[in-house]
Formats: sequence, structure tokens, C-alpha cells
Amino acid sequence: MRHPVELKGRPASDGIFAGPVFFLSTADAVRQASGDPAIERRDFDAAVAAAIAGLGALVAIAEGEGAEMLAFQIALLEDDALLAPARDLIGQGKPADIAWRKTVDAEIVGYEMSDDDYFRARATDLKDMRDRVLRQLSGTGGLGSQAGAILIGDDVPPSLFLEADWSKGGAIALRQGSPSSHVAILARARGVPMVVGLGDIIRDGHSEAAIDGAAGLLVLSPDAPQKRLWSAKADALSARRDREAPFLDRPARLGDGSRIELLINVAEPEELAVLDPGHCDGIGLMRSEFLFRDGRPLPDEETQYRAYRRLLDWAGDKPVTIRTLDIGGDKPVKGLTPEGERNPFLGLRGVRLTLQRKDVFTAQLRALARAATHGNLKIMVPMITLSAELDETAVLLDQVMADLARDGVAAKRPPLGIMVEVPAVAVAPELLAKAAFFSIGSNDLTQYVMAAGRDEASVAALGDPAHPAVLRLIAHVANYGRERGISVSLCGDMASEPRHLAALIAAGLRTLSVSPASIARVKAALAEIKPI
Amino acid sequence: MRHPVELKGRPASDGIFAGPVFFLSTADAVRQASGDPAIERRDFDAAVAAAIAGLGALVAIAEGEGAEMLAFQIALLEDDALLAPARDLIGQGKPADIAWRKTVDAEIVGYEMSDDDYFRARATDLKDMRDRVLRQLSGTGGLGSQAGAILIGDDVPPSLFLEADWSKGGAIALRQGSPSSHVAILARARGVPMVVGLGDIIRDGHSEAAIDGAAGLLVLSPDAPQKRLWSAKADALSARRDREAPFLDRPARLGDGSRIELLINVAEPEELAVLDPGHCDGIGLMRSEFLFRDGRPLPDEETQYRAYRRLLDWAGDKPVTIRTLDIGGDKPVKGLTPEGERNPFLGLRGVRLTLQRKDVFTAQLRALARAATHGNLKIMVPMITLSAELDETAVLLDQVMADLARDGVAAKRPPLGIMVEVPAVAVAPELLAKAAFFSIGSNDLTQYVMAAGRDEASVAALGDPAHPAVLRLIAHVANYGRERGISVSLCGDMASEPRHLAALIAAGLRTLSVSPASIARVKAALAEIKPI
Repeated sequence: MRHPVELKGRPASDGIFAGPVFFLSTADAVRQASGDPAIERRDFDAAVAAAIAGLGALVAIAEGEGAEMLAFQIALLEDDALLAPARDLIGQGKPADIAWRKTVDAEIVGYEMSDDDYFRARATDLKDMRDRVLRQLSGTGGLGSQAGAILIGDDVPPSLFLEADWSKGGAIALRQGSPSSHVAILARARGVPMVVGLGDIIRDGHSEAAIDGAAGLLVLSPDAPQKRLWSAKADALSARRDREAPFLDRPARLGDGSRIELLINVAEPEELAVLDPGHCDGIGLMRSEFLFRDGRPLPDEETQYRAYRRLLDWAGDKPVTIRTLDIGGDKPVKGLTPEGERNPFLGLRGVRLTLQRKDVFTAQLRALARAATHGNLKIMVPMITLSAELDETAVLLDQVMADLARDGVAAKRPPLGIMVEVPAVAVAPELLAKAAFFSIGSNDLTQYVMAAGRDEASVAALGDPAHPAVLRLIAHVANYGRERGISVSLCGDMASEPRHLAALIAAGLRTLSVSPASIARVKAALAEIKPI
Repeated sequence: MRHPVELKGRPASDGIFAGPVFFLSTADAVRQASGDPAIERRDFDAAVAAAIAGLGALVAIAEGEGAEMLAFQIALLEDDALLAPARDLIGQGKPADIAWRKTVDAEIVGYEMSDDDYFRARATDLKDMRDRVLRQLSGTGGLGSQAGAILIGDDVPPSLFLEADWSKGGAIALRQGSPSSHVAILARARGVPMVVGLGDIIRDGHSEAAIDGAAGLLVLSPDAPQKRLWSAKADALSARRDREAPFLDRPARLGDGSRIELLINVAEPEELAVLDPGHCDGIGLMRSEFLFRDGRPLPDEETQYRAYRRLLDWAGDKPVTIRTLDIGGDKPVKGLTPEGERNPFLGLRGVRLTLQRKDVFTAQLRALARAATHGNLKIMVPMITLSAELDETAVLLDQVMADLARDGVAAKRPPLGIMVEVPAVAVAPELLAKAAFFSIGSNDLTQYVMAAGRDEASVAALGDPAHPAVLRLIAHVANYGRERGISVSLCGDMASEPRHLAALIAAGLRTLSVSPASIARVKAALAEIKPI
């Protein structure tokens, strides 16, 4: 029985949760070999079976080529030709993890030396498959036993978050990490409580914990009084949620009855499956990165077209703003993003990158223009700094329209708007007056205005989106948009946080794009605000 | 005889130069072993002698502990106890580079395993010494034969620039690099022509080249007409310099006779040796990083005090603005700056770091307060984002003053000003109204406002300090300072470039801090400007 340990981190996703803890380890974690070939063989077979089960669950939610690659891994793991050499080595007395690594690595060499691009690309899938089994073998097990637990780790890659089972609740507590990371965005979208920047957490002996996402609190091995407190907190939270629930299907309004356009931010199309389009005014930010996962082949035009069309089908007549590929920065994609950048957030990312990869950009614009015939589609370009970048994108879109018309393919030219996230644009928005709309990306805008990386725990305290300088720039853009009749929204995380809403309304914003999990809460909070 | 190859890069430091080329290689470059122990022994002895000569030249310009460490390397290279094992291995048929590496690496292990901090720290010096000899051995020779040549390489570390001999002219041409890098700053200070971002330069067969720093041009193997053109360009440049020379010892004035305060930026105290204090109005930015070189022990208070006092002695009554330690970002110092930051420019740098290392910060503030009794010293704090950071620094300085008074040590509290380089401060300068003065760091301000890293060639085109957004922020700070009676200067590189001066004067600036090499040119250009 351990004494309770209370740790304070930074809030990343609201919610209260208490339950068992699940410590994340990496594929490199040291596994204690049993020394008994029979036990090693049993552990190995169980690890392969668990990896196959995990992959099966992922296939169910994956898109197009992603699903194919997962199926490829499953097929390999079910193939005795791959498993037999590993089992032989185990029979000869090798520990299961070493036998497996040796076997797959030998296979990888063959793929990597192939003359065929397709087989060389598959080497990445083999490594991924190898690590899935190693994670299962590495003492703490795989993610199979994670459901309904508090994941504790240094940091969590987005892929692991997507792989996890959140249907039974659960939460995330990280030693490092940042509230603005991609995983934190996903956690907020799915309503999974999350705390980051907890520092070194004592590992041994804790089997239970309680987490308060909004307060940034984690209690390891809570005692009876703490459990009572936690239960009371959970009750208060559900009472609040009950209070907010009636707002869900009402239009968003301020206290004086004036209408607010409330859109949603979406990272993964699966988020829409559990969401009623009647609860929002449309999609303010659909990230297109879900189609471009690191290590996967690039999606072709047809795959993209089908994915975009599904979003428009979901939204009906409501606007769907799809952001063109925004990789680079903290979102590397092998073969597309540059390697070795010293400061990727200040490097070749967003439109800077796609303008250098016209093949990729053109395929995306073609797919978007074709999908636009099925609804109210808008294109949003990320990381615009200079008007020349928007001009060049518009020329590319014109070319795409001309090509599609020539080929007799149905298409429509969507309005072309921009993210306002580079400070230069927020300071001098008149230079981008050609944009069809502005959407303020307050996460990136804040990190640049404060010169504080949003994925560095050491400067996380500086990354305050409510700093007067950030709010002043937001108000500047909102005023400029109103004067010029250019619509201005804000799609950063701050719009989903009730404490920031009054400041955003005071800054002149009347369109906000928020995480799907926060719709009711934001509507309830807006109803309390009296505009000046 | 090669055909001429003309390459266009980005200007980094003005000037025209034509001469032999010198290709930089790393210590890891492959050396072709002769196979003859006698030749290997001869090459080895020559490399050691050249390394000793190079170290001797460095000692002459180094400060305090830096000089000691160089002397330590010389002593080792003159010690037969170290050289004998390498010579033995060469006698047994080993190539010179392999014999030397083996010998020194064995020695390094002994130092690294020592219980004594002093000896462990010396391991770094041994590695540096090892690499000096390896550079001499690695085919292209060391920097010994560089004097009067155009250095061509991927990038150049500041240490190599300082080690080089520029007394016979010379220039730098880089495949990568950036005009805002530290080396570019040094090159401009010393008047060494430099072009960066040239991309892959054909290596073989070129022995001559011509460079135009201002135009960003490099011509490899120029033919006779090109040589004539180059000679004419060089003549035009010296004519311009002759025209500007008379301005050198006049006060800086605009076309209407109004006075401009013209200060200088200094990175290395040696720069002052060739400079008449009468040519400027003081030092606007003295970087203190010269005392904190990567891999060297931290300077103690006494060493710092002596160094600061020498600067004040040079300046007489004129102001000397010393910036507190500004490491991190692109200036790592082992043991002080964090490792593994994903975006060091958005990380723990400048005052963010020194406030976490109060021991280091206090020693520097003590040395500054003591030196302040010898002249007109001001302290400038880099990377201020929040007023709390300035408050905390002021409290630390108060404590330092109290401690010095208690101990009866002569000291004076210098005014405490800030760098304006984080956009938040430029947008809302009123939050830092307590600062004694503002100095706009346009290099960093530009990289944050444009979200374009100043050391990434791929986004260098975005890093325009004359972008309307940057100029608007500069004018905003200048106006605020004028209204509130807070002096505002600008110490970024743009102040040294005549083409930017009219915009800076129009923005309201009347104090500029420029590179020592550009004083005459800036004064001549200012005299052409009629303020509105």
C-alpha cells in the first residue's frame, strides 16, 4: 500500500477520471526473459495474437490506403512463414523479443534492398508491425489492457492515442507534453481527460490514480478521503454537464440574443460519426492531415475526393472548411517534410511546403474542386505569410479548374481563404485582402507572438493565448475583416475554453470554431456573455 | 582549365574579392593513406606543427580562461609522452590519422573516467586538439593555407571563422547558411565578403573564384573577361569606400543636420582593438557570449569584471550597453543550454534561461555592477516576453547591490533595459514601461513575426526585416518610447544596411546600433536622408 502522491501539471483536456494506471513503455523497454523456452513461446504467441487484435480494431476506423497497410500487417502476422523462424529461435533458447526482432529485421533487410519502390516502402510497415509485437512483449504489455485506465508516459504519439480504446473511459497523464500538442487536440475532441508536464512521476507500486484534467491534477494511490473528494468532483462535473446539455441543440447566442456562428474543428472523420450536424453551424476547420499519415503512401486524388465528399455529405448545406495539407512543424511526413530542420516550427511547413510540392498540392486541389460540387466547401490555406503565396495558390487552383473543365470532370471553384497564424498577417491583414475569409489560428499565432514553442514544457507558461498582445492582434484582424466585409473566425483551442470567450467576443469575433466535445459548454458560456 | 561557373546565392556580407579557393572539409574527411610509414610520419609531424602554429595565433586574441585552454592544448601537442605512441603506431604501418585518433582517444577515456571535475572538463579540449590535427591531415589541409582565399563549405562554425587569418583578405561562400547567422554577423563586423545558400557547388577542378558579397554572386574559374569585370567592380567598391571615408570621424546626421546617435554592435572585444571610439557614440550592443564559449568552463565573476571593465575603459564617457548572457536558440553552451529542444529558437533562451540559472545570472550581474563604477554602463536583458521576467531580474540586481554594499565592494546600479525582439513586446510595449530603455532586435523580431527561422535557407526569403508588418511594429515601439520618454534604439543587422535606413528613420528611430565595419557607410547614407 503506497502513500498518496499528488502531482500538479498543466491542464490539457477537461474531465475527471479515477481508475487503474497503465504505464506506457517503448518498444525498447527491457524485457525480463524467463529462461524457459515454453514460457517464451507462450508469451510470443500471446503477443502476436494481441497485436493482430489491435490491428483489427484499427482497420475498423482507418481510411482507404491506411486500412490496406494495416491489413498487410495482419496478413504477415498470420503467416507461418514469418513466425516459424522466430519460433525456431525461441525453441533454441533465445528470449522471445530477441528472436522476434532478429527474424523481422532479417526480413526488413530483404525489403529495403528491393529494386521495387513498393517493397521498399513496405519496410516501414514491417518495422511498425515488429514494434507492435515488441510492445506487447515488453513487460508492461501492449495497449490491449489500457481500456478504462489512466495512461502514464513521457509523451504519447497521436497514433497511439488513435489505437487506444476510450469506450470505457480512461485518461492521459504525461511527464512532458504540451496542452497544444496534436494528442491534446485529439483528447479534447474525444473528451478524454488529460494532464501534461507532470515531471518525473514515481513509477513503482502505484496501481490506481485519479485525474482532474481542468485542474491539471494527478493523484497516485489516492486514499479513502481523496477518493471521496474525487467522487464529489465527478458528481459536480456531471451536474455541470447536465446543466449544459440543453444548449447542445440550440443555436449559439450571446446573452442579448445575438447569433454566434459556432463551427467545429475536426481532425479525424471518425469524430463525425458520433456527432449530429444539427448541433453546430458547420465545420470551421477540417484538417486534411488524416490522409497523409507519416510512413504511409501519399493518398491519390480519388482517395482524397471520396474522403472530402463524405465530409460534405455529413454537413448537408452547412459550410465545410477544409484546410490544405498542413505538415511540417510538429507534423513530419517522411518523403514530404524536410529532415534536419533546426526549428521546424519556423521552417518549411503548411503552404510553404505544398508550394514546393506542386504535384501533391495539385492533387489535393483537384480532389477539393471535384468534391465542392457536393456541398458548401471552402478551402483554407495554412501558414500564409506573404500575399504572393496566396496568389500562387490561386493560380494553381485556376489551372486545376481549367484542366478539370477540359477533361469534362464535374468541379466547382471553392472560395480560397487563409489561416491567420503568422504574426505578420495579423499585424498587416490588409496585405491579404484578397483572401475570401480569415480564420485565426490562435495556437500558432500565440507561439510566434510569445516566441514560445507550443510543444516545449519549459516555456509552456509563456504560451498564453489571452496575453494582451495576442488579444490585440485578434481584435485588429476582426476589425479589419468587419470594415472590409471579410469574414473572420477563430479556430484555435482558446475558442473551446469558456474562460476565454468573453475576451474573444470583446475583440469583435462573432464566428468561432471549437472542439466537438465542447459545443454544449461553449454555447452555455456564450449565453452568459453580454456584448458591450 | 575549367569553364567558368556562375552561382547566385544570398548576400551575407558586402565586399568584392577574387583569389584562390579553399574547400573546407571536416575532421571526418577521408584521408588517402600513403602506405609508406616515412611519408605518414612526415605528414603527421607537419600536421602537429601546423596545429600548434594555429593555436598560437588563437592564443594571441583569446580572453582569460579561453587562452589558458588553448595553452593547455599547445602544451599537450609539444609533449612527447602524447606523440610517442602515435609515432610508434605509424612506425608499425598504421596511417597517420588512424594512429593519432587511436592515441588521443585512449587518452580521452582516461580523462573522462577521472573523479576530478577539472580533468573531465579537459576531455573536451583533448577532442578539440585531436580534431585540429585531423583537419590538418585530412587531404585539404588545415586552415593554415586559407589566408587570402575564398573559403567554400556547407556551413562554417564561428570558431573556425575566428581561427582563420583574414589579414590578407579572403571571403566565404557557403552551400547552406543564412545571412543572419553568427558567422555572417562576424563577417560583416570584420568586412569579410560572404555569400550563403549557394546550393551544391561543383567541387573538383576549380582553383580560383571571384565573389561579390552584396550581389550574392560567386564565379568559379572566372575567364579573362570575367576577371576584368571583377577588377572593375573592385575598383568601383574602393571608389565608394573612398567617398564614404570622410564621414567616419564626423558625428552622424540626417540631411537636415539633425543628430542621429550612432552606436556599434560588438561580438568580440578584439573588434575594438582596431576601432577609434571617436567614430561612434558608444556601444549599443556588447554581446557577453564571448565569455561563455561552448565546451569551456564558465567564467567566474572576476574574469567577467575584468572583461567588462576593459570595454568601459575603451569607451571613456560614452555609453556601453552590455547584454546579459543570450545563449540557447542557435547558441548552445554545454551544461547551460537545454538539449533536445525541438525548436530552440522558441525555447529556453536568453533571460528565460538565466532566470533558471540564478548562479550564473548573479555572477554576471555582480561583475556588471562592479564594472559600472568605471564608466557609463547599461545592462540589457535579452528575450524578455513578460514584465515578470524584468521584475525578477531587477530583484536579483537589487540583491546583488545589497550584497556588494554589505561586503564593501565598490559598485553602481546600472540602468536595466530590454531587447525588444519577442513580438508580444513590440505589439504591447506599455507592459514593459518599467524598462530603462528599449533596443529593438530586428533579426529575432523578424524571424518571429514572419515565422521563418533565420538559420534555415529554405525560408530565408521570408525573413525580410523591411516587411510592412515588421516596420509597423518598429514604428509602434518608437512612438511609444517617444511618448513615454523611454529611449529606443535598434541593434539588428538592418540598421547597418543603407537600403533600410530611410524606413527606420521614417519609423521614428533616432538611435541606431550598427556593425563597426559599416560606420562610414551608414553615416554617408544618413546624410542623404531628409526626415519628413
